[in-house]
Amino acid sequence: MAAKTYPQYSTRYPLLLTDFMHRPLSLYPDDIGVVYRNDAGEYFRFTWRQWYKRTCQLAHALKQLGVKPGRPGEPGDRLGAMALNHHRHLELIYAGTCLGAVSHPINIMLSREHMIHTINHAGDSIIFVDEAVLPLLELIYDRIKDTVKTFVYISDRPGRPQTRVAPLYEYEELLKGQPEEFDWPLLSEDTYAVLYYTTGTTGMPKGVMFTHRQLYLQTIHILAAQMMRFHSYAMEFLEWLFTAKAEALGKLIAAGRDPKELLEELKKDFPVLDVPMINIPLFHIHAWGAPWQNVLVANKMVFPGRFSPRAFCEIVQTERVTSTGLVPTMLAMLLEFEDLNKYDLSSLRNIGVGGAALPLGLKAKAEKQFPSFRVSSGYGMTETAAGSIAAALKRHMINWPKEKQDQVRVKTGTPIFGIEARVIGEDGKPVPQDNSTLGEIVLRGHWIMEQYYKDPEKTETAWRDGWFHTGDMAKVDEEGYIVIADRITDVIRSGAEMVPTVLLENLTATCDHVLEATFVGVPDEKWGERPMALVKPVPGASVTEEDIYHFLEVEGLEKGKITKWMLPDFIVFCDNIPKTSVGKYDKITIRKRLDEFLAKAKRMRAPK
Amino acid sequence: MAAKTYPQYSTRYPLLLTDFMHRPLSLYPDDIGVVYRNDAGEYFRFTWRQWYKRTCQLAHALKQLGVKPGRPGEPGDRLGAMALNHHRHLELIYAGTCLGAVSHPINIMLSREHMIHTINHAGDSIIFVDEAVLPLLELIYDRIKDTVKTFVYISDRPGRPQTRVAPLYEYEELLKGQPEEFDWPLLSEDTYAVLYYTTGTTGMPKGVMFTHRQLYLQTIHILAAQMMRFHSYAMEFLEWLFTAKAEALGKLIAAGRDPKELLEELKKDFPVLDVPMINIPLFHIHAWGAPWQNVLVANKMVFPGRFSPRAFCEIVQTERVTSTGLVPTMLAMLLEFEDLNKYDLSSLRNIGVGGAALPLGLKAKAEKQFPSFRVSSGYGMTETAAGSIAAALKRHMINWPKEKQDQVRVKTGTPIFGIEARVIGEDGKPVPQDNSTLGEIVLRGHWIMEQYYKDPEKTETAWRDGWFHTGDMAKVDEEGYIVIADRITDVIRSGAEMVPTVLLENLTATCDHVLEATFVGVPDEKWGERPMALVKPVPGASVTEEDIYHFLEVEGLEKGKITKWMLPDFIVFCDNIPKTSVGKYDKITIRKRLDEFLAKAKRMRAPK
Repeated sequence: MAAKTYPQYSTRYPLLLTDFMHRPLSLYPDDIGVVYRNDAGEYFRFTWRQWYKRTCQLAHALKQLGVKPGRPGEPGDRLGAMALNHHRHLELIYAGTCLGAVSHPINIMLSREHMIHTINHAGDSIIFVDEAVLPLLELIYDRIKDTVKTFVYISDRPGRPQTRVAPLYEYEELLKGQPEEFDWPLLSEDTYAVLYYTTGTTGMPKGVMFTHRQLYLQTIHILAAQMMRFHSYAMEFLEWLFTAKAEALGKLIAAGRDPKELLEELKKDFPVLDVPMINIPLFHIHAWGAPWQNVLVANKMVFPGRFSPRAFCEIVQTERVTSTGLVPTMLAMLLEFEDLNKYDLSSLRNIGVGGAALPLGLKAKAEKQFPSFRVSSGYGMTETAAGSIAAALKRHMINWPKEKQDQVRVKTGTPIFGIEARVIGEDGKPVPQDNSTLGEIVLRGHWIMEQYYKDPEKTETAWRDGWFHTGDMAKVDEEGYIVIADRITDVIRSGAEMVPTVLLENLTATCDHVLEATFVGVPDEKWGERPMALVKPVPGASVTEEDIYHFLEVEGLEKGKITKWMLPDFIVFCDNIPKTSVGKYDKITIRKRLDEFLAKAKRMRAPK
Repeated sequence: MAAKTYPQYSTRYPLLLTDFMHRPLSLYPDDIGVVYRNDAGEYFRFTWRQWYKRTCQLAHALKQLGVKPGRPGEPGDRLGAMALNHHRHLELIYAGTCLGAVSHPINIMLSREHMIHTINHAGDSIIFVDEAVLPLLELIYDRIKDTVKTFVYISDRPGRPQTRVAPLYEYEELLKGQPEEFDWPLLSEDTYAVLYYTTGTTGMPKGVMFTHRQLYLQTIHILAAQMMRFHSYAMEFLEWLFTAKAEALGKLIAAGRDPKELLEELKKDFPVLDVPMINIPLFHIHAWGAPWQNVLVANKMVFPGRFSPRAFCEIVQTERVTSTGLVPTMLAMLLEFEDLNKYDLSSLRNIGVGGAALPLGLKAKAEKQFPSFRVSSGYGMTETAAGSIAAALKRHMINWPKEKQDQVRVKTGTPIFGIEARVIGEDGKPVPQDNSTLGEIVLRGHWIMEQYYKDPEKTETAWRDGWFHTGDMAKVDEEGYIVIADRITDVIRSGAEMVPTVLLENLTATCDHVLEATFVGVPDEKWGERPMALVKPVPGASVTEEDIYHFLEVEGLEKGKITKWMLPDFIVFCDNIPKTSVGKYDKITIRKRLDEFLAKAKRMRAPK
């Protein structure tokens, strides 16, 4: 540990995530800061002081397990987590990163092949695994055991499982007896803190690392950007308050009371605490950065393990949850939940929907159920640690009618301060703000990925002319809002997951009877999009749609190359799959003619 | 200029003030961003695009004048400004700093000797001087002309003055014909941006520099810290809204209308824009950092030249000013202004008072005049670029009654996130949170001064054991709030100015008839504090209070060592001036016995 010597640090005082932990600890040590409810319905509640104590104890345990910190340019030990959303996962994220190691949340929704690749490519030295995820780990154990030297088992119940995974420590046993304080190292701010993998839509998942400085700056910029739009937030808050108190206000008005008494009514039970529920899996870019902002602001964070509508409703009611992030699929499941109206969900005033486009029917349903529901769009990717462009209202729009505002809110938006974004044409120059000319979104700024981990080739493809090339096409409207027009990568977004079309195309093309195959998304009320396969059979082959489906099940699913939700809902045979001039599948044209293909397609699975 | 090459900048994308300019330019180019009203009552208004254009033109002019940028550790050219608060001063601040040079606002309220010292010590290569300040510059010209090579004259009227100050350029002529765009250099974030001088309470003023990184981080942290207290702001906003709309709401209630109609009434003319008036002189730490935050947020900034009650009221009414910072003296002048109630000041909803303690009588008057008036305390100094500790309410205090909240708001507060503060005893350890044990406030963090410019000795005194020692004594209450108890430096704060007691003491002691002399502050409704001299005459000397006063006028004022407002309001002769065990004047005891000394003192000047 470097000595804390000054004044040499006074102009370069390091931007470390470690400082985020200390704010709730010093301001609200005895407030409940972290809540976890498990599948069995048990609640675990921790004050900030207790949470911090446990995080310190874990840091001591990690040191004893030999975890080594990194240096600028050289990552420390990678700590993999095959874990759901709970307090221990949060402890691991902070203990690991603040120690100088790298937090690597493993996406357990990936295909087995991809998961194995990410673990070996990351070189995880330890994997933390949930009781519920252990069977999955056992399936891939033989393929990763040469990389991973240590495993830590996480369970809400004492004891250890019967398993061949070894050496296996138990999380709570590791913490037991450890000192309750930890002397966190004064790291360089350029120390790598996290490693995320892309979903691998165009091949193998790629590794993306961020430093302490990058995540710190992202967090603080996003908060500052919110304050820059204070009046917009204040207006929304006022509307929510009036909706929530409509009945009480009505009575006071009927009784002819003074405006001051109405004000007192509005101030009564005035919410002073944000209670976010973390539904987005932490293995997705740490639930879009949830651990950083919520610990710093000292919000009461509520972890549901994994999302289910019943648990969601129960937790909202019990913990008075105020905000949550959902993918459209979760929202759809929630709105279809039969007992939805049996719960008191009135504390919810901010439901963010992201990760995929929100179908209009779903939006209408949500608005009816939650009066304060507001759709808002945004843009981010693994390479930008999630948030980079957001559809914020400009000042003159704050007084617009809601319908007109919504037309702005569904646009992709403008870059968050701290990020520069351009939409450039093939000449490398920004396209005109004419709401029609297409260009590629390029980015640079404080929290844009530096390089793909151990992949200089792909890095060079993405970073050109001083800008990170996203591969996404957009136009820019007259107000300067960026509007995504198409994804070059043509990913299909099903629920929280991205269906990697190139992988599917390559797999399908290995079938003897198939000449060409491509995949596109078909709008789906529940999942946002579901895959449809367009297949051109080998001329003269006698093959059915069922044969193709069976092939994907046997060669893809059973061999762990794809997961069940990647299997197409529809398959359509066609002699001429539209192609671009360079011979690539022309997905823009396919989407334009989607109804035509869909009419001829065969439905393979009933929607669930 | 360094080439903008990536990805090597992606993890170290520089934190530059230059980026602040681009936000209003890209979001609100055609909104009025900067307004200046001069003493003659003329208004000058600029859109953000116009302001940016002029700033680019000035940058070209500065380059032509030979202004050189700095490097980390080596400041660029220092650009002095002897200027009031107007748009040109703002242009100079941005053009200079974003070019890589150092903005040095010269405190024109210092004594002539101190002013000369700061200019020569800073080594200003150019001085920008207002028409109204030119006579002052002429007075000191001979003593600074070897240092300063170029002068630029700023006036709202065309033409040049008759003056021996040379070479003298004219500001608007410099801008004429310059290109309207500027290719700002990609500086290192560690480039020095500003140079401020302390008031020199304990000797000569000391130079304090901050880098782009430091000012950028301060600005963004302060905004983020505000968002962390969103509910507190929302509550205040709600209270203001109800007060402002009380009449209209009363009518709707009387008519028995629906709560929804009340909401619509509250949303009508909903303020979406902050309009700060910059009354604190820019030569005081750039008006506590006003240029940074307001440009970034794209607030409409209103500059009044210099403060006067009539101009203040007119500008508030004309520009619908929403917020302003005042020192207690300005507030007192405003409340005494005879025509105060002839103006519509209803747009004002945030009056910050700082720089000195707010007398209770003044607070009561202000609350009566401005229903939304809220006193709030804070702590900062030149060495912390102003804001470092603020009296923010904790969450559980948001619903407290106003009186109880005010007791918190007048405390010094807790450190703004980004700054670490401790109150340490003589053993170097934090004092207990018992609201009674005194210790010294020490600081470190992102915007604490690195060193006193060209003064390693004073730097070493201030920076010890890894902490910046403020020289201010405080206690810590049970909630962790720091409460200033005393200033080791014993400064007297008269209006916006600090009366340097050591200077006065040294001067008075040079009088033949004086054996010992010390100065303390006496509470004053208008100025906050005014100086009282305690004098122990040489035994047997036949000397009067008038003699002492006359001596200070002849030897101090006329010789430019002190200014008029440093002359004591009271002089008291006493045989035993209280002293501490180490022989220093014991100001704590003197203040305790203030009434006793005051009763014996002779009033030298009538309060104004």
